[in-house]
Amino acid sequence: MNYDSERLRRQIDFITEIDKLKNIYRQTYVLGEDRKENDAEHSWHIALMAFLLAEHSNQKVDVLKVIKMLLVHDIVEIDAGDTFCYDSEGYKTKADREEKAARRIFGILPQDQSEEFYGLWREFEDGNTPEAGFADVLDRIQPLILNYTKDGISWKEHDVCKSQVENRYAKTSSSSTDLTQLALSLIDDASKKGWLKK
Amino acid sequence: MNYDSERLRRQIDFITEIDKLKNIYRQTYVLGEDRKENDAEHSWHIALMAFLLAEHSNQKVDVLKVIKMLLVHDIVEIDAGDTFCYDSEGYKTKADREEKAARRIFGILPQDQSEEFYGLWREFEDGNTPEAGFADVLDRIQPLILNYTKDGISWKEHDVCKSQVENRYAKTSSSSTDLTQLALSLIDDASKKGWLKK
Repeated sequence: MNYDSERLRRQIDFITEIDKLKNIYRQTYVLGEDRKENDAEHSWHIALMAFLLAEHSNQKVDVLKVIKMLLVHDIVEIDAGDTFCYDSEGYKTKADREEKAARRIFGILPQDQSEEFYGLWREFEDGNTPEAGFADVLDRIQPLILNYTKDGISWKEHDVCKSQVENRYAKTSSSSTDLTQLALSLIDDASKKGWLKK
Repeated sequence: MNYDSERLRRQIDFITEIDKLKNIYRQTYVLGEDRKENDAEHSWHIALMAFLLAEHSNQKVDVLKVIKMLLVHDIVEIDAGDTFCYDSEGYKTKADREEKAARRIFGILPQDQSEEFYGLWREFEDGNTPEAGFADVLDRIQPLILNYTKDGISWKEHDVCKSQVENRYAKTSSSSTDLTQLALSLIDDASKKGWLKK
């Protein structure tokens, strides 16, 4: 197959490479089938939530940038794998594994786009901008909503306790008071229903 | 579970409702597993392609709008199902089924967002704006790239012939000359390799 330009060839190579995100499974279940959710589905869901819920961001955010970040943020897991948010051992090596993955995978792109995509991922990870903060809340609340709606299935499977889930929202209220309140109220209700350990 | 506002409750109801898109399977296969792709994965892929490939749009487009359209465009298939692009019987009832689905599913949202989401879907379907035109090219070329990369598996499965695939790009060159050329060249190569009937 010939491409008109090296640039287009690199873009298409990237498109087929990131297809692998559809095979990276998370600990969250989809609602309608007895199977876990993959990173591509999760990324679609939260990118859509970004513009659906933008009014709940405390600060005005560039919605396009939030969406781009969310569409890109999990791509590193193609090499690094999904690290479950309560896996403290996995978290020790997560940053290194993901940095290496980012260099390889975004490196497939033409130079300018490689830098742009790496930058979006880095900004999300660093979490220092209003966009990264709001994107992070969405990334945290989507599995919570699914897990709550599915009677806490993933929490039960991993013996997760209430304080562990609450800790995930210890710093989110500066990005979204509304969504943090919602999260805490879902956690409280889940705990009362016995889906979370005390 | 209590929500602070009726508005937020509707938004969360919509988020759980559209989770069903993860269970709507298409005729395209993912590259890394022996299974078909679902609408949520497909929507993630093309939304990302929208900003990756925006330079290949003939007209300047509002990328945020293109992405929103692509994230939303398949949601009607939760009720209407996926209509395979070469299913001429299915196409006779597609518009009616999808209109009804759009009314019900976007109707879950608060009124202003219901109108916004319906409008995005309608604009995509009508295809009269530069954004809708470019979104349509991406929606057509993503399965082509996957199918080509996987040795034409879905074409072989459905006995698809070259002219049927070519017809899908009869009107796309006004939106993207580059991507239409790429499509035709992939089709030509696929035909030479015997993956498409003459």
